[in-house]
Amino acid sequence: MLKEMMPEYVSGEEICKNLNVTRTAVWKHIQVLREDGYEIEARPRAGYALTGIPDRLFPEEIGDGLTTEFIGRKIYYYDRVVSTNDRAKELARAGAVEGTLVLAEEQTGGKGRLGRSWYAPPYKGICFSLILYPRVSPYGVAQVTMMTAVALATAIRRETGVAAGIKWPNDLLAGGRKICGILTELSAEMDRVNYLVVGAGINANQETGDFPGEVRDTATSLKEAAGRDIFRNGLVRVSLAEFERWYRVWSVQGFKPVLEAWKELSVSLNCPVRIHTLKNSWDGWAEDVDEDGALLVRAPGGGLQRLVSGEISLRLA
Amino acid sequence: MLKEMMPEYVSGEEICKNLNVTRTAVWKHIQVLREDGYEIEARPRAGYALTGIPDRLFPEEIGDGLTTEFIGRKIYYYDRVVSTNDRAKELARAGAVEGTLVLAEEQTGGKGRLGRSWYAPPYKGICFSLILYPRVSPYGVAQVTMMTAVALATAIRRETGVAAGIKWPNDLLAGGRKICGILTELSAEMDRVNYLVVGAGINANQETGDFPGEVRDTATSLKEAAGRDIFRNGLVRVSLAEFERWYRVWSVQGFKPVLEAWKELSVSLNCPVRIHTLKNSWDGWAEDVDEDGALLVRAPGGGLQRLVSGEISLRLA
Repeated sequence: MLKEMMPEYVSGEEICKNLNVTRTAVWKHIQVLREDGYEIEARPRAGYALTGIPDRLFPEEIGDGLTTEFIGRKIYYYDRVVSTNDRAKELARAGAVEGTLVLAEEQTGGKGRLGRSWYAPPYKGICFSLILYPRVSPYGVAQVTMMTAVALATAIRRETGVAAGIKWPNDLLAGGRKICGILTELSAEMDRVNYLVVGAGINANQETGDFPGEVRDTATSLKEAAGRDIFRNGLVRVSLAEFERWYRVWSVQGFKPVLEAWKELSVSLNCPVRIHTLKNSWDGWAEDVDEDGALLVRAPGGGLQRLVSGEISLRLA
Repeated sequence: MLKEMMPEYVSGEEICKNLNVTRTAVWKHIQVLREDGYEIEARPRAGYALTGIPDRLFPEEIGDGLTTEFIGRKIYYYDRVVSTNDRAKELARAGAVEGTLVLAEEQTGGKGRLGRSWYAPPYKGICFSLILYPRVSPYGVAQVTMMTAVALATAIRRETGVAAGIKWPNDLLAGGRKICGILTELSAEMDRVNYLVVGAGINANQETGDFPGEVRDTATSLKEAAGRDIFRNGLVRVSLAEFERWYRVWSVQGFKPVLEAWKELSVSLNCPVRIHTLKNSWDGWAEDVDEDGALLVRAPGGGLQRLVSGEISLRLA
């Protein structure tokens, strides 16, 4: 009621009548909302007015205005969690519905690709994981990861104006620095995926000092890139909408339109790159990605190398 | 002690002295062993003699004479379990060591490929699952499944004399009927496998009446193929040894020698096959398998089709 009338006053009497509760009950609930960070003014005779909504990822706030059909329709929200991906995998094993979203304000043991950690200070980053049951073999999962990069880059552009680009295989960059990482995990048999968990860590309102030393030079946040605070709630909502849209495109039309969009958003094609493998590093020219999401790199000798997994960095020509 | 002297008598006094226990304690332990199916004769003055070892998959029996270094060195044994693969996945998530073996005398909710059930009556079949942590991407997992088929076909030939052959992708047949199914499950990220569970269901001592109606025409057991009872303990031990041997070959030398052995053991190459897909069936000629384990089938029109997953049946030319 307060939100619908925001920022106007709603009389206490009207609230009581509408919800069939006592004045004291209303007062108590107002207190709880205030503790959650909602700014509510109370004025004798006038009643209550909502003047500020906290940027917390409360399921009710995410759900309010959410346009999706199944992505994020069921939300598990945590103030603090070890890893949203781990929690999502547990829920998937217990049979959570497709599109179930796990959201956390803080991750204490978040994971990045290749066993790295992913730091997310409370209330500044966005950590979420989605549970999916695509009817594909494990070979098709790379496509979903690339689809996720497309969806999130699009969502970030739409909601924040920051020109997010994709660095192969699935990092999002702004001005050459990382603003989002994607970690896909799967449980599968040879012929089919049991469940898929797509996790995303978005650097939303972090400041330079919030990043640990080892990534301070290579990471940035949307706040720093945009020069203003990011309303995380809105970004999550738009991310879910874009995710559902692209997941549908992929399911119905296949990988081709996804790959085209991926290439358009890419900042690591037609440019010099350095390839990092377990054994060594070498320089090459990123030419293209193929139908399986592998990066095709022109080696100094002239040959074309196919990279199915690994790590690259962009370099000046 | 009884086993070392089998089938000779060991005096009760000697046992007491050796193990530093009382006569009554020895008697109680003998009773427990008898309840487990060990045949032990007791004779005044002579002592105890072991005359029969039950064909139960007790970890002590499997471990006695096991030649492996890490495969099956840690065993979880159950009289009855829903699914050895499910139990193994739980153990893998909890950090079980590589090579951990889950064994069950009976599976109540065993799984086959593509969500089918796998029936295993108590004490007649062999159901086991192995936990592995290979350093591969999800793409490399098909190789481990094919390696498993090679290892188990070899073990069956060695231990029972039954000429087990491999039907693509990973069934073992004897005389055209199924004697073993393999179900590989994985938990992975895009770049690496977190853990792999390789499950096998071997029809050892089943008789025709033990198979449910829907598979009675297509399944058989090693007992029926060999014309005698199979000593399951021995077969498990040899299977573990062959598994470790081939796992090493694959780790050190790569997939090539595995693929060569797979082709030699195959009963579904250079023969007419029927391909079953979700939509339809068609007949073709199975020509080869490629480096990824895909089946190359010559279609009636002359073109070569690449089958990465699915189902085939053998047919008369």
